[in-house]
Amino acid sequence: MLQELYVIKIGGYILDNEKLLSRFLSDFASLPSNKVLIHGGGKLATELSHKLGIETKMIDGRRVTDEDTIRIVTMTYAGWINKSITAKLQTHNCPALGLSGVDAQLIPAVKRPIKNIDYGWVGDVLPGKINVSFFKSILEQNMVPVIAPISCNDQGQLLNVNADTIAQYIAESLSPYFATTLVYCFEKNGLLENVQDDSTVISEISLETAADMKQSGTITSGMLPKIDNAFQAIKNGVQTVMIGNALHVRQLALKLNGYGTRIKA
Amino acid sequence: MLQELYVIKIGGYILDNEKLLSRFLSDFASLPSNKVLIHGGGKLATELSHKLGIETKMIDGRRVTDEDTIRIVTMTYAGWINKSITAKLQTHNCPALGLSGVDAQLIPAVKRPIKNIDYGWVGDVLPGKINVSFFKSILEQNMVPVIAPISCNDQGQLLNVNADTIAQYIAESLSPYFATTLVYCFEKNGLLENVQDDSTVISEISLETAADMKQSGTITSGMLPKIDNAFQAIKNGVQTVMIGNALHVRQLALKLNGYGTRIKA
Repeated sequence: MLQELYVIKIGGYILDNEKLLSRFLSDFASLPSNKVLIHGGGKLATELSHKLGIETKMIDGRRVTDEDTIRIVTMTYAGWINKSITAKLQTHNCPALGLSGVDAQLIPAVKRPIKNIDYGWVGDVLPGKINVSFFKSILEQNMVPVIAPISCNDQGQLLNVNADTIAQYIAESLSPYFATTLVYCFEKNGLLENVQDDSTVISEISLETAADMKQSGTITSGMLPKIDNAFQAIKNGVQTVMIGNALHVRQLALKLNGYGTRIKA
Repeated sequence: MLQELYVIKIGGYILDNEKLLSRFLSDFASLPSNKVLIHGGGKLATELSHKLGIETKMIDGRRVTDEDTIRIVTMTYAGWINKSITAKLQTHNCPALGLSGVDAQLIPAVKRPIKNIDYGWVGDVLPGKINVSFFKSILEQNMVPVIAPISCNDQGQLLNVNADTIAQYIAESLSPYFATTLVYCFEKNGLLENVQDDSTVISEISLETAADMKQSGTITSGMLPKIDNAFQAIKNGVQTVMIGNALHVRQLALKLNGYGTRIKA
């Protein structure tokens, strides 16, 4: 029987709130099995850009990454956030190892091709090239990889990569070797019937229902790519995929039902 | 017989010069044996502090590290510089893995005790606690650790640690397992009789001669701690210790004599 593995993506404003982040990290550390944490960047990169007088350009909710911006996101995501989270996890007896997609060629990427929009130094992951053997070696040593969403291409150019997509591909790559649960977690309780009401969690969602909800606008724009990543992951063999509250991951540790929204295969 | 290992510390202005850094990295990658690279921070942290309007406080050539400054050095050293170097090494077929002292509790530290001066979030390495087994596992996988001089204490507080000292302790910890050569390299050809004249390299130096040179002021203040690290390392069992030019490390790869200054046991 395969060992269990949790691949958890943490995003949203919890990353920007020291107290909530600390609570999440304590709960994450209590998960009894193998685990990988992928973090986004929160608002720090935008704040730093602002302080340095660098304009943040967003198109359709995605950051356009010029020379200054790739430097800022690398510093913020792979430097401050990654090392802060790694150091804090260790205080909870969680042997964390902070990495980016660059390190050990963990998550090779290419610059996103220009169609209508040039996103600059934004990368698309090359899913077949993920360094699965290094991930396995780290997990076999009982270490917990903490991944910042920065990678590079084969020319050594650093690239800003979407953390939700990284989480999807890591889970997919490891699901042949581990009984893998991929969790996208943030500040809400899951996918909500009514986005204003955290008690209206949809406990399970099929691709068809999700399509209807997209059409009707019930799934808001920020959630769209995450939902697509979630359905891709389940389609590509990840055993369990969920969307839920970062502050409830202890429910997963305790094997309690009722955590967030489960993606239906 | 033990396998060879190079532990190389790169510092000085070469880190700030893209072209020279690129040349150094290409040469470093050509070293045929196991290798570890430790980098300092160059001027980037000071530049970033300046842009953000944060005053850089130095006492005796050492940076006082307040809350703002630990954030800046972590972003700069463990983020931008570490990931840039790691990505560039990979373009030279060098399977680099960027790390800080935080990751996998590689280089545990404590806040430097306050005597006359409070250096703030500056750390002293706990040499007996270095995670030797992780270093060995990485090297056995033919990977090349690239180390940023940031670590943390057991409370999860990030700390700014001297890169020369990290290099010394890494070399010492690994010398029972590898025939280790520790190289401090920078922009000069080694220890110089006349600091203005790069042709006056001292090919070999004993502790006694070094003491005389310190007394007479021939060894300049910036070099003093490096020299102390070098003699400590040789005393504590590192097989070979040298100080030399970052742009001549190919001489080491080619096993040519005449590289820099050798520290006499």
